[in-house]
Amino acid sequence: MSNPFFKNQGPLKITDILKSLGININNKNQNKEIYDIKDLVSSTENDITFFHTKKYKGVARKTKASFCITTTALKNDLPETCIALLVDNVLVTTSKITSLFYPDAVYDNFDESVTSSDDTRFKNRVIFGKNVLIGNNVSIGNNCKIGHNTIIEKNVVIGDNCSIGSNNIIRNSLIRDNVRILDNCIIGKHGFGFFPIKGKNLRFPHVGIVLIEENCEIGCGSTIDRGSMSNTIIGKNSYLDNQIHIAHNVKIGENSIIAGQVGIAGSTTIGNNIKIGGQAGISGHLKIGNNVEIGGGSGVIKDIPDDTKVMGYPAKNIREFLRENKWYIKQQ
Amino acid sequence: MSNPFFKNQGPLKITDILKSLGININNKNQNKEIYDIKDLVSSTENDITFFHTKKYKGVARKTKASFCITTTALKNDLPETCIALLVDNVLVTTSKITSLFYPDAVYDNFDESVTSSDDTRFKNRVIFGKNVLIGNNVSIGNNCKIGHNTIIEKNVVIGDNCSIGSNNIIRNSLIRDNVRILDNCIIGKHGFGFFPIKGKNLRFPHVGIVLIEENCEIGCGSTIDRGSMSNTIIGKNSYLDNQIHIAHNVKIGENSIIAGQVGIAGSTTIGNNIKIGGQAGISGHLKIGNNVEIGGGSGVIKDIPDDTKVMGYPAKNIREFLRENKWYIKQQ
Amino acid sequence: MSNPFFKNQGPLKITDILKSLGININNKNQNKEIYDIKDLVSSTENDITFFHTKKYKGVARKTKASFCITTTALKNDLPETCIALLVDNVLVTTSKITSLFYPDAVYDNFDESVTSSDDTRFKNRVIFGKNVLIGNNVSIGNNCKIGHNTIIEKNVVIGDNCSIGSNNIIRNSLIRDNVRILDNCIIGKHGFGFFPIKGKNLRFPHVGIVLIEENCEIGCGSTIDRGSMSNTIIGKNSYLDNQIHIAHNVKIGENSIIAGQVGIAGSTTIGNNIKIGGQAGISGHLKIGNNVEIGGGSGVIKDIPDDTKVMGYPAKNIREFLRENKWYIKQQ
Repeated sequence: MSNPFFKNQGPLKITDILKSLGININNKNQNKEIYDIKDLVSSTENDITFFHTKKYKGVARKTKASFCITTTALKNDLPETCIALLVDNVLVTTSKITSLFYPDAVYDNFDESVTSSDDTRFKNRVIFGKNVLIGNNVSIGNNCKIGHNTIIEKNVVIGDNCSIGSNNIIRNSLIRDNVRILDNCIIGKHGFGFFPIKGKNLRFPHVGIVLIEENCEIGCGSTIDRGSMSNTIIGKNSYLDNQIHIAHNVKIGENSIIAGQVGIAGSTTIGNNIKIGGQAGISGHLKIGNNVEIGGGSGVIKDIPDDTKVMGYPAKNIREFLRENKWYIKQQ
Repeated sequence: MSNPFFKNQGPLKITDILKSLGININNKNQNKEIYDIKDLVSSTENDITFFHTKKYKGVARKTKASFCITTTALKNDLPETCIALLVDNVLVTTSKITSLFYPDAVYDNFDESVTSSDDTRFKNRVIFGKNVLIGNNVSIGNNCKIGHNTIIEKNVVIGDNCSIGSNNIIRNSLIRDNVRILDNCIIGKHGFGFFPIKGKNLRFPHVGIVLIEENCEIGCGSTIDRGSMSNTIIGKNSYLDNQIHIAHNVKIGENSIIAGQVGIAGSTTIGNNIKIGGQAGISGHLKIGNNVEIGGGSGVIKDIPDDTKVMGYPAKNIREFLRENKWYIKQQ
Repeated sequence: MSNPFFKNQGPLKITDILKSLGININNKNQNKEIYDIKDLVSSTENDITFFHTKKYKGVARKTKASFCITTTALKNDLPETCIALLVDNVLVTTSKITSLFYPDAVYDNFDESVTSSDDTRFKNRVIFGKNVLIGNNVSIGNNCKIGHNTIIEKNVVIGDNCSIGSNNIIRNSLIRDNVRILDNCIIGKHGFGFFPIKGKNLRFPHVGIVLIEENCEIGCGSTIDRGSMSNTIIGKNSYLDNQIHIAHNVKIGENSIIAGQVGIAGSTTIGNNIKIGGQAGISGHLKIGNNVEIGGGSGVIKDIPDDTKVMGYPAKNIREFLRENKWYIKQQ
């Protein structure tokens, strides 16, 4: 989960982690130092992991983590080397522990480290507009322009030949070469992810970033949220029009064309060479194939295989859509 | 109707009010001073009121107002103590009189009273970004952050522990404790309310405010318009995602979850614990109950009772929606 | 195609134009100077034109242009005075030549010519907010207000009595008298127009402007793109609500009312006195008549004649929409 954008506060003593959650543990292991929270597969013996659905039974049996947040029903699938920490809601506890390791990834306060572009080492190398603010440890390539009132927050990396317009806010993002970001975009904000709790919701940390690949264009007033556990990715040479919203963890392939006011909900994956018409919406956690065309205004609520044209709400094969609306189309 | 945001220019002589409208009145009352324009119920003998539909016949009979804008058809329902002022269009005339009392509530020019946050009494008490502008008579609680380029216009009140991001504009609003407003939001602008007149529409004044209750979060690029005669309210612990539009007079209950690009039209009231999926739209003047779930992309055009799930355009009970699309859902 | 916003780099030698495209030409004409690229009708003998569909056969026969980009199939419809330059894709080549004449119209980098409003001749004549930036050769009428952080880029013309709010970016636009632009709008950006090419799309130049006629109001967070070959026009006394997207070449008539989050795709023409409900979308290249009403959330995919009410997705006559949803409407 680690990346340059969110500082890992580990190692943390397991006893301190559990104390903050009100969980008891037998004394033998209380001084064990934990370096990170990772998924079942990538954990080492220095990490804590989590196991919340029997779907992951196979990998759970092989995890190398020393501790695992899980439930009574699942604990018997863990290896003997892994101590089960039993909770009611695995994901809530996982979120709380992740927040201990990455406290900066929970809330998105503004970056206090920024300074006027005139006071940075980029002053003579980048063409800046007026009132541009640059955070600590930002990297900007050659031959770039960054417009008026734009804010590049700490650790952001921008490649060569990029044109960033005015009034943008970019944080927790990697922008590759030849990218054009027009005006008024917010890129890299945390996603709309939290556990609803009456009176005070519990935000979960977003330790992912936004990655915008080479030759992309992002239209005015668009928002691209960073990932929670993985990254949000816009593939090479993809063009996004104005007022588009891309939620956390979304992956968009190469050579995609997305028209104005489209919204793509969290964790959906989209293939290469796709076209999405204006105002279409795509639900979360879907898989949209390669060479797919989605008509304007469509509402996509299930996966779409490769090489398919869909339209409608709910979106269906374009042949079905036309058949259903035949009387109407003919009228024209 | 009075509130700290819009200065009441009263008292105004009734003769001056009517002269500006081209209405004649008998001489006896011409020097009577009028302090405000109010609805039939809350008016006192120092106020002018309005009566435009027989739906309000009952309260009209008991109004204490000395004058009432109304029509020939309705005038006989007013008490003898109230002088009927007969016009063709009650609401247009009411709008014009309200504009006389509250001229600042008609157009939203930018606040010329703002000054750099460095020159305010908050300088050492609030963590400000660069280029923050604060209007006259603003109040900001303890432990707040306000990001770069944000503009807090005159009379706005912000509670404790609030995190306001960058590039926001907040006016005519009351923000309670622990509220997070992300970036690029416009909160408290007048609503899209006017009388269409060919050649030059007539804007009606918006004397309501925006009230954001405790623990709310407002996503990037959202717009929340203030009320016209009542307030726009976002209830406690409600979370709004990016690019949401909340129109004037809308009331949203507590613990609501509203996903990206949702739009709610004017004067709609929404209960507690509701969930609205991305890109859904809700027509104006509707009543949405408690514990309602509205599917993404839905178009709601009628009231929804408590504890109901709806989806579709027009939005209908989720069971109906699924039944209608059964062949399609099964395909999956 | 010429206008004050995009400098014409002509005259260019035909041999230089063609060399850059890899097209051969016989020697006799190689020093001929070409002043502009225009359509078949408005070209003079000093211009180059283009002819890509037999629909224009009639006007092609009468063109006065000395050169014409076209295909083998179409060349015989050109007069003898016009030399056919044969290519595979007429529009791609036309785009490339237009880019030679108008290189500034291809990409929208930020305007480096801007200066603080305090340093302009408008300083004592316009009421400016803080941090307002004004480009070269801007014109602003009497009695105008321009809010904080707003950027008026070079050559923009603003009429009398205009109220421009805060955080706006206006470029390549003509704003007539009595226009109100609220906050956070981007007006005059190039449209979402390009030739999709795997690996690196080819943007075509946008040499049109945005024209906003008298008495209009543009809501917060809206985007209005300038035209590619023609202009984007908002007719007199039209009111647009928040978060609206108007694409390139769209023409909207007078006295129109467009509610929040509506999107209108490229090159659609809309008549006078129309009403469009919130979140409705209109496809590109359509013709919407006068006095049309489009219900909220509708998706319009074909032309609409005068004096028609439509609703639905796809949008159909309101009677059909109500008939189809009768069982549902009755329930209420």
